[in-house]
Amino acid sequence: MDERDWYTELHGGPFGLTIRRDQVLIRERTPYQQLEIFENEALGRVLLLDDAVMLTERDEFIYHEMLVHPGMLAHPDPHQVLVVGGGDGGTLREVVKHQEVEQATLCEIDEAVINLSREFLPFTAAGLDHPKSTIHVGDGLEYIRSHREEFDVVIVDSTDPVGMAEGLFRSPFYRDVKASLKPGGLLVQQAESPFYGFETWPRTFSELASVFRNVHCYGAAIPMYPSGYWTFAFGSDDLTPKSWFDPLRADRLEGLRYYSSELQDAAFQLPRFARLALASEH
Amino acid sequence: MDERDWYTELHGGPFGLTIRRDQVLIRERTPYQQLEIFENEALGRVLLLDDAVMLTERDEFIYHEMLVHPGMLAHPDPHQVLVVGGGDGGTLREVVKHQEVEQATLCEIDEAVINLSREFLPFTAAGLDHPKSTIHVGDGLEYIRSHREEFDVVIVDSTDPVGMAEGLFRSPFYRDVKASLKPGGLLVQQAESPFYGFETWPRTFSELASVFRNVHCYGAAIPMYPSGYWTFAFGSDDLTPKSWFDPLRADRLEGLRYYSSELQDAAFQLPRFARLALASEH
Repeated sequence: MDERDWYTELHGGPFGLTIRRDQVLIRERTPYQQLEIFENEALGRVLLLDDAVMLTERDEFIYHEMLVHPGMLAHPDPHQVLVVGGGDGGTLREVVKHQEVEQATLCEIDEAVINLSREFLPFTAAGLDHPKSTIHVGDGLEYIRSHREEFDVVIVDSTDPVGMAEGLFRSPFYRDVKASLKPGGLLVQQAESPFYGFETWPRTFSELASVFRNVHCYGAAIPMYPSGYWTFAFGSDDLTPKSWFDPLRADRLEGLRYYSSELQDAAFQLPRFARLALASEH
Repeated sequence: MDERDWYTELHGGPFGLTIRRDQVLIRERTPYQQLEIFENEALGRVLLLDDAVMLTERDEFIYHEMLVHPGMLAHPDPHQVLVVGGGDGGTLREVVKHQEVEQATLCEIDEAVINLSREFLPFTAAGLDHPKSTIHVGDGLEYIRSHREEFDVVIVDSTDPVGMAEGLFRSPFYRDVKASLKPGGLLVQQAESPFYGFETWPRTFSELASVFRNVHCYGAAIPMYPSGYWTFAFGSDDLTPKSWFDPLRADRLEGLRYYSSELQDAAFQLPRFARLALASEH
């Protein structure tokens, strides 16, 4: 193997994922982070931010479907949806599949992610240009603070809770999200892997539980993320994942490849080690 | 990265898993395969057969718990259990946790796997030396043919269906397994990842369905196996995974870190792409 042509992401120890860079399409320093998009023969386009895999064309459907649909289907009528982060557009693409949606707003801090996704990642960027989508470039923390009782569902599609995104995993932000939600609203957030014992993993859920009455964790098998098992956080004062769940609404969603209504229960059944880590935190 | 000191397993394309070899403990050619055990600072001991990861100390609990417990708990009274393959002992270790077991027999073709596991992998090899365990060195295909109505549960813990192990994923073997089972018995088998579209993945289930009335697929998140999502096949004429399931029996099992009784349902809820691949095969 030629070291120069392979990307390697270590997963908290001397092991990890390696992907051959068959063609580098763009590599630039944005005002916020290092961004790279390359092509791999088997995985298609691969987006790196600060040298961590954000998505691959091959498996991004799993992350985006599972970030979006369990929360959207828990809400009886999600008209107004906010996505914090998610500049590649994949989350919007899934949000606007729900016919209840009137407006899906994206608040992404790094305009370069939006622009370069439009150029190089059309399969996710399609969501950015949907008629129901509105794009706002700015800081999600500030954006949330300036909106009150506006959203039915807030979806946090950010990088991990280190550096720039750390504030998105803390209770002050969660209190602001709660205030930005209409009565009966809910929050969903990507919440890392429980497997490698990141100290931040259970903390996210305890911070959420200090703000929202109902906090749930669910998971999905995402090959290109560390450990291959990724979790998501669900928070609401009024709703649970099954409160308003209607499999017929799930059946109307088009082009699903991972989510199905059976997962509205099954994805919330965590491996024992993860459940125990959450229980000891609360 | 120094190429000589890193193990890399490609997953059906130019990408995969890479692990630093911190110390090679043994590397030898057995009569059947290339065997290596090395130590990694974060993952502990790593067993390779023919240059594919069979287990790591860090995550082997997931594979072994999920290979064993859903099937064992589907049977009302599993006295006689046969493990085909599994020379490292991890599967036996989980089988003998079930107090119903009178005898757990292991049939492993490669004695070197047994001996070197005893020497270097004590955490799994403990299962080999349990009072209820009996070790037989020989060909699983032949062993099964020479036993009739003897086992309550047969567990196939083999390498993937290429080369040596291919016959273990074909209907003639399944017919022999069926004949080796007592009435009301069942088979469980590791069945690869659905994600990388191995053509053998759905085939295993259709071959099984040509022999057993009830065939089910379930999955688990196993970080060190390709894609991180691994499946298992369940086959029986009489039983389903919930036929005799009693959560109290599950609660009695000691030292579980992945399996819990909620997974007896949830693990059988497959991602949509996997469900569709099976449906189109049948």
